[in-house]
Amino acid sequence: MKRIIAVIGPGTAGEETIREAEEIGRLIARRNAILICGGLGGAMEAAAKGAQMEGGITLGILPGSDRGGANPYIAIPVATGFGDGRNVIIVRTADAVIAVGGAYGTLSEIAFGLKMGKPVIGLHTWEVKGILHAVNPDDAVRKAFQALEGP
Amino acid sequence: MKRIIAVIGPGTAGEETIREAEEIGRLIARRNAILICGGLGGAMEAAAKGAQMEGGITLGILPGSDRGGANPYIAIPVATGFGDGRNVIIVRTADAVIAVGGAYGTLSEIAFGLKMGKPVIGLHTWEVKGILHAVNPDDAVRKAFQALEGP
Amino acid sequence: MKRIIAVIGPGTAGEETIREAEEIGRLIARRNAILICGGLGGAMEAAAKGAQMEGGITLGILPGSDRGGANPYIAIPVATGFGDGRNVIIVRTADAVIAVGGAYGTLSEIAFGLKMGKPVIGLHTWEVKGILHAVNPDDAVRKAFQALEGP
Amino acid sequence: MKRIIAVIGPGTAGEETIREAEEIGRLIARRNAILICGGLGGAMEAAAKGAQMEGGITLGILPGSDRGGANPYIAIPVATGFGDGRNVIIVRTADAVIAVGGAYGTLSEIAFGLKMGKPVIGLHTWEVKGILHAVNPDDAVRKAFQALEGP
Repeated sequence: MKRIIAVIGPGTAGEETIREAEEIGRLIARRNAILICGGLGGAMEAAAKGAQMEGGITLGILPGSDRGGANPYIAIPVATGFGDGRNVIIVRTADAVIAVGGAYGTLSEIAFGLKMGKPVIGLHTWEVKGILHAVNPDDAVRKAFQALEGP
Repeated sequence: MKRIIAVIGPGTAGEETIREAEEIGRLIARRNAILICGGLGGAMEAAAKGAQMEGGITLGILPGSDRGGANPYIAIPVATGFGDGRNVIIVRTADAVIAVGGAYGTLSEIAFGLKMGKPVIGLHTWEVKGILHAVNPDDAVRKAFQALEGP
Repeated sequence: MKRIIAVIGPGTAGEETIREAEEIGRLIARRNAILICGGLGGAMEAAAKGAQMEGGITLGILPGSDRGGANPYIAIPVATGFGDGRNVIIVRTADAVIAVGGAYGTLSEIAFGLKMGKPVIGLHTWEVKGILHAVNPDDAVRKAFQALEGP
Repeated sequence: MKRIIAVIGPGTAGEETIREAEEIGRLIARRNAILICGGLGGAMEAAAKGAQMEGGITLGILPGSDRGGANPYIAIPVATGFGDGRNVIIVRTADAVIAVGGAYGTLSEIAFGLKMGKPVIGLHTWEVKGILHAVNPDDAVRKAFQALEGP
């Protein structure tokens, strides 16, 4: 079964976060893993765009009841209708979680990832005990796979 | 965006239901739609097997917290950890719902499908006002797409 | 711990259903049990009104994100934000379920109740194998408590 | 309608956290508000105990499918079966959130509270931008009500 890697980040993001999220998405797809995210805009859209440009599978777990809410780079949208409750599903489904940038929603996902004992990699995001900090997208994706597969 | 069709049915199913679910899965994949189901055994597994044999995408929305619970024909497992609450997500995400055989879980999904105003096709399943009854797998899949696209 | 009895029924209900739901709510409170319902209008509001008139505790599990959506007879509102997913919570929390009247949402709750192996009593509602049918509110409440406590 | 105040904190807590949570529960009940919490042990149990000792209403939103999992001071248990997804429900239902001590689950609830724009008061808990820090239980409860009602 393919690895599933979550990219979590703000729905409204600055240029740098967008660029980083897109690069992370690209690198996840290159490693033949499925990208899972919240399916909306900002960092989620950038990560999905990056993954799709590399031919990867993009899975978007939406808060709303309507698949139409997904960004255009989501190949497989899941309409939960559970609002913020969908954050739990993203993290549960992922093997590892990469947080980039981040507002409060991202923080909730970091917390769930650490609670569930999954590797949580952070790039320019919240400081929380247990996060593995990365210095750039390449380092973030490398650390995620290292945590899963060993060096 | 691809169509997403749900196949709902019992986790423990008789031979005929298994055969019908597999054929329905096959026909959904041939029409280039994504199959969504509950990801477990019985009718869900048969439908996913049929779809995968035709090269289709299979999406399994699991009740448990562990992706490992998915049947072997699920390419894209989503671990919700929401128990029966995941039934809502299956139906919300689908464009149309095909019920085959069926125990109480299936009935809950039929009810959600009808409540949400989606086409619900039934094959040897519960009698509920609003279901479009089909006589065989081919008829079921044809009726589902007709309801979405017109004759 | 007090018994918790669910009353499930349509949000838009006819006069007879309203009268029956209110009487059921009253009888549940007289037996010192907590009433749980979906917290909105119609049969849910009538049942809560009946229970509150008898000094009972009324617990409303709302689909929306805002407690303000509860009907005025709900003493304890729970805002799930999970839409129809809240139906699962109502049934899981209840010791027994009484369905009165009913549209598709009610049918989903009947299905969950039967799936979870809980007593499901029906009054002028869906015909589903496993429901105990009652002839009036008094009979419905009596049957619910009999199922829990024996005759 | 009564105020609903959430007390969030770890299921396994040290003596000081227990003492503080119990005192917070007591003060919430004295102000005639409903206490909502996760319904399990540790800080949740202590807060419920405090509130119940003062005659307050205690509402426990449980992660599991069985009401029996509630601590003995929960008068009104809600069995969600949604695991960590129930954290969203606790915060959504509350008018204000008081975090005491705290592990990763608590952090997720702090994040949801801040995301939803609710007052989040912290006592010996995570440092997150937006939390109002309190120096003791009395200060915490006072700050929560001040945020809701003005000074």
